[in-house]
Amino acid sequence: MEIRNMFDAISANLPEEITQTLLEREGLRVERIVSSGQASPPDFWYDQDEHEWVMLLAGSAGLEIEGEDGARSLKVGDFLLLPAHQRHRVAWTDAQCETIWLVIFFR
Amino acid sequence: MEIRNMFDAISANLPEEITQTLLEREGLRVERIVSSGQASPPDFWYDQDEHEWVMLLAGSAGLEIEGEDGARSLKVGDFLLLPAHQRHRVAWTDAQCETIWLVIFFR
Repeated sequence: MEIRNMFDAISANLPEEITQTLLEREGLRVERIVSSGQASPPDFWYDQDEHEWVMLLAGSAGLEIEGEDGARSLKVGDFLLLPAHQRHRVAWTDAQCETIWLVIFFR
Repeated sequence: MEIRNMFDAISANLPEEITQTLLEREGLRVERIVSSGQASPPDFWYDQDEHEWVMLLAGSAGLEIEGEDGARSLKVGDFLLLPAHQRHRVAWTDAQCETIWLVIFFR
């Protein structure tokens, strides 16, 4: 029974966002995403076939949801459900520290 | 789009463990469990039909896995997969603070 830690193996000053799959089964995928200041490209929107349940484990981020005014600020512990095809984008992530997302994708 | 926080609405000195379902779909259930010093009864073992992916979000705990010597100590951020019918029990949880578990049950 292997125990791993969500905060391990994060190097400082990541040039790119890092996505790791922690668990994958049919219709279910759990990912850790580590951001360090990255954001979605301008005018880019995620539009996914899967539902996404997401929680912030570290850092902070701004999440834009299509149809809403401005970005929602997310702090540690915040979680929400993004139904499939709910268009959204990451407006910003904390430039001062790693932002760690725990994401459950499911069908 | 409702944003909730994993650390909200926890009262001090919980007399019992609190389990809340955060998401439920066919074959998938995400729960928050808040413990404050509770443990599994002596000689009680969980033996579940579902697989369980579990992460510690706050506090600390001892997890006994059948066939292993002694309990594994879990700290914040630790996560592991307990396959269905992998018998396990909670040997202890932190008596000084809330221990918060994020659990994904799936089939």
